[in-house]
Amino acid sequence: MTLLLAVKALTQENRDFLAQYDIDVVTPDTVTDDQLSEVVISYAWDNTIGNKILSLPNTKLKWIQAQSAGVDYLPLPLLAKRGITVTNASGLKALPIAQTVLGYLLYFARGLNVYATRTHWEPFTDQYLISELPVLVFGTGRIGQQIAHHIKAFGGKVYGVNTSGRPVAGFDETFPITDYQAGLAKAQVVVDGLPGTKNTENFFDDHFFAQFNQLFLFINIGRGTTLNQSALLEAIDDSRVKYAALDVTTPEPLPHDHPLFERPQILLTQHTSWGENINAGRVGGLFRLFEKNVPSFMKDQTFIQNVVDLNKGY
Amino acid sequence: MTLLLAVKALTQENRDFLAQYDIDVVTPDTVTDDQLSEVVISYAWDNTIGNKILSLPNTKLKWIQAQSAGVDYLPLPLLAKRGITVTNASGLKALPIAQTVLGYLLYFARGLNVYATRTHWEPFTDQYLISELPVLVFGTGRIGQQIAHHIKAFGGKVYGVNTSGRPVAGFDETFPITDYQAGLAKAQVVVDGLPGTKNTENFFDDHFFAQFNQLFLFINIGRGTTLNQSALLEAIDDSRVKYAALDVTTPEPLPHDHPLFERPQILLTQHTSWGENINAGRVGGLFRLFEKNVPSFMKDQTFIQNVVDLNKGY
Repeated sequence: MTLLLAVKALTQENRDFLAQYDIDVVTPDTVTDDQLSEVVISYAWDNTIGNKILSLPNTKLKWIQAQSAGVDYLPLPLLAKRGITVTNASGLKALPIAQTVLGYLLYFARGLNVYATRTHWEPFTDQYLISELPVLVFGTGRIGQQIAHHIKAFGGKVYGVNTSGRPVAGFDETFPITDYQAGLAKAQVVVDGLPGTKNTENFFDDHFFAQFNQLFLFINIGRGTTLNQSALLEAIDDSRVKYAALDVTTPEPLPHDHPLFERPQILLTQHTSWGENINAGRVGGLFRLFEKNVPSFMKDQTFIQNVVDLNKGY
Repeated sequence: MTLLLAVKALTQENRDFLAQYDIDVVTPDTVTDDQLSEVVISYAWDNTIGNKILSLPNTKLKWIQAQSAGVDYLPLPLLAKRGITVTNASGLKALPIAQTVLGYLLYFARGLNVYATRTHWEPFTDQYLISELPVLVFGTGRIGQQIAHHIKAFGGKVYGVNTSGRPVAGFDETFPITDYQAGLAKAQVVVDGLPGTKNTENFFDDHFFAQFNQLFLFINIGRGTTLNQSALLEAIDDSRVKYAALDVTTPEPLPHDHPLFERPQILLTQHTSWGENINAGRVGGLFRLFEKNVPSFMKDQTFIQNVVDLNKGY
């Protein structure tokens, strides 16, 4: 018998699947203290109960299935030391996040940002086609690839930045992060899709924004920690960056009097770029990712997909 | 020698092309009264100078190249009686208009409408993917087809309505306008792309909106005359229609105190859905359409494309 802690809800169908592998399910509401140390799998992660498990000397925890693509909220060094595997939800939210990014692009490109608050007749025609706004995406994983796919479908140009500059399907060209400037020279829109790691902290700082004369749009759907928000605000106020759309910020929630709320050039979507209508689909989607690793994990504690490199952090 | 009145600007390249056909160019600024009656071609249309030409007993006007897809602002019955041909700019603005329509869709689907004016932290997650919002487009011409193409690229469903219900490439299914209800039953978004004619006047009236329980989004990129705006306002206020995006209205400009400006559920883009960045491209685009008809017109006064049926009005 293997014990699974279901931090996210499971359907009866999910439970039937787990029963085939002799996996028993407990939930945060009903789990006893004795059971906590027996938990082998955490299906989704909650810091309160999760840290309680990790503090137990005799914890049997071996596998955490994160509910998100980014896992910077997990105690990764501790997990590495303990030999606990983390699988992430990379790919699960790629489609909704990419649609939000295309929404941002068209919102500013088609002038909807102006009309959203205009209450008198004053036509605004400083508009763009997607093909007139080449995009550079930092991060060429599943979210970046989905963004590239949509931009290509509109006849646009899209460039990527990753660690090595290796080519990635769907991008017109890719650049290594050590030479991202070559990509920047081609772009009018920058998408920050970087994971939250030590290496990416404050990557988009005042030196980065100093490179622009007038960037049309800066987007952050990566992690708030990758962006120096004060540097962005200065660039917006100096018109070095015309518009910005931020899904992630530091902190979250932002205090009500935060200057990011005060700039009409900035759209804040409050970490909801992943939203879709079918709630059942959200839960089911995570399980469909998770269940692919169950047979190999139960056989010999190996995994076939979505394993996080705990040193890299993604 | 054939005289052309250039209501829209021509480049030197355009003029060189016309010179090959012995076509002389005059502009509204410099044309003399004597020359007006000699004008054979009006490149784009201006009502003031155009009506002056039509009022001359000895006018030689034979061809009007309209700068728009819709030509309801032209005196069509008079032109029919005089044997004057109108060619329109159908297809020229299909791409930018379709991108604005996708912008509307993503604006409301991804919740950007809520965040556009939100100045405090309050996440909103009633969001949709394009695939969760099937679209019914009234009008399956070039603009409708371009909209369908973009929606399909997002993995969405798109249905069309035209006069006969004939199938049109890019649409999942088409319906005759006499049985549009069959299409409506499948849709959560309605796009009004109808031309402004006697038959389409007030087509979207209170009976039309009475059919909805809760339509997600009504879009008008056709003509203001096709929509009964009071009926739409009532449907919005009753929540039978959740959101609306209108590029065209009656009248244009709308007075500042018009109730359409007062509903947060309605986005008004003030007849600018056609905008793109390269102004040169706009002018050049019209000429590229126009020039295709020049050889045949100069040979035997025939046309190879974009001829308006003056009785139908499109």
